[in-house]
Amino acid sequence: MTDSTDEPIVPAPASQGLVRSARRLLRRKERTSTAEFLAEGRQAVAEALALPSTVLDLLVGADVFERHQDLLRAAVRAEVPVWSVPPALLATLADTVTPQGVLAVCRTVDVTLEDALAGAPRLVVLCDQVRDPGNLGTVIRCADAFGADAVLVSRDSVDLYNAKTVRASTGSLFHLPVAVEVDVADAVAAARAAGLLVLGADGGGQGTVEDLVDSGELSRPVLWVMGNEAWGLPPEHADLLDRLVALPMYGRAESLNLSTAAAVFLYATATAQRVRS
Amino acid sequence: MTDSTDEPIVPAPASQGLVRSARRLLRRKERTSTAEFLAEGRQAVAEALALPSTVLDLLVGADVFERHQDLLRAAVRAEVPVWSVPPALLATLADTVTPQGVLAVCRTVDVTLEDALAGAPRLVVLCDQVRDPGNLGTVIRCADAFGADAVLVSRDSVDLYNAKTVRASTGSLFHLPVAVEVDVADAVAAARAAGLLVLGADGGGQGTVEDLVDSGELSRPVLWVMGNEAWGLPPEHADLLDRLVALPMYGRAESLNLSTAAAVFLYATATAQRVRS
Repeated sequence: MTDSTDEPIVPAPASQGLVRSARRLLRRKERTSTAEFLAEGRQAVAEALALPSTVLDLLVGADVFERHQDLLRAAVRAEVPVWSVPPALLATLADTVTPQGVLAVCRTVDVTLEDALAGAPRLVVLCDQVRDPGNLGTVIRCADAFGADAVLVSRDSVDLYNAKTVRASTGSLFHLPVAVEVDVADAVAAARAAGLLVLGADGGGQGTVEDLVDSGELSRPVLWVMGNEAWGLPPEHADLLDRLVALPMYGRAESLNLSTAAAVFLYATATAQRVRS
Repeated sequence: MTDSTDEPIVPAPASQGLVRSARRLLRRKERTSTAEFLAEGRQAVAEALALPSTVLDLLVGADVFERHQDLLRAAVRAEVPVWSVPPALLATLADTVTPQGVLAVCRTVDVTLEDALAGAPRLVVLCDQVRDPGNLGTVIRCADAFGADAVLVSRDSVDLYNAKTVRASTGSLFHLPVAVEVDVADAVAAARAAGLLVLGADGGGQGTVEDLVDSGELSRPVLWVMGNEAWGLPPEHADLLDRLVALPMYGRAESLNLSTAAAVFLYATATAQRVRS
């Protein structure tokens, strides 16, 4: 292996032990006990490599290592070992039907609630009992897009390191602090102590996000609490919040789904904060 | 069968022929040739029954017909025949893993491009080469939520009557006019003739949706063109549009996915149109 830009990097074959260890990370229990997970595909791998001390091993299909030379060079520069794996074996580690042949074994990246709320945050999202991995990943992507400072994930939500969550986040998981296994009451109290208005996204909210834009409240630092896909915010958590807020429904649909609703709440808040502050 | 509110409606057993015909509607070719499709689950069935002359037959699980008496009564009032089907047989018609035991055979509801754009529309969405059925259904739901007047679907997009599209639309398919098999150039020309500004959702757009809010352009009647999940708007279609517009990306994410981006574009437009007009 060499870092010369002229010669292609030809990775050494991965040991059976390494592939077996990586495959065990498909199970949540193993991810929790090792504090490791898999990031699959070019985009996720590139973002993981950009975050120092995150990637432990880079695995690349023996048939496609020439196509991924840019990633292999980034890995070598970061002193990350690069290994080649026969395509059929690599497929057993992938969650997608058409994997791109590149996969990183990563250290988990979550932070504590305290660290997530450090540094005067202005926009934070709390996922409360979000159960669909694609939704959690998409909410993290939206939070990143609209400049949120952190994402908090309640302890009865889906695993942040599920392959589908990692994929749906399209690398945003590596961009902003995410705290997991969060107690909702603790998180709300900490957010309030940090000066955030605590708003619950709820179709039954008495006012809409437009009302809060007009009143100027949405220009304040805000924690948005997003509830479960099917049953929304649990009533015992709704009581903890400063206010429940709906989206304006101008047509005949009753509601939006979780990730589209989160996108609109975050966009409206990010815009209001920039216009007014 | 009776419409009395005192006695429960006990549906007659469906014939094997009816179940066979319904099962054929799982195939696009059969849906196209018969101009019929299946709507599954309580919400979709209720919305379909609310649209006159749409439901041809209502099928209900022989084990759950007592639970769905409200829907059965609505069907009887609308003179729709109601049939009971053994649960295992009904499951062969369902797309979901945990079906609710109620399913409507419906007439297709799409309209012509001309009809979709009739009546001075102010907010219309065109899906150009959208390939994921869940995305198309979610865009229709968002369009309905934010009061759009119509949705147009290009001829190389996914089938509107795919079970996943119908489910993701959560009944919005029955709320607003949808034109399918649309030629993009024809649709853009017709929209412009109807007085709509034609905007393409594109991460490479020179301005953002916020710029158009500020300039007042977003308060005008608008057609939003949303491109494919992976490759966005085809370049030959981008040339047809008045402008390409991006979302503001305040953080480090490069983009949003199709349905969350559509939600934000539609929300921003609906809000701008209501504030300014």
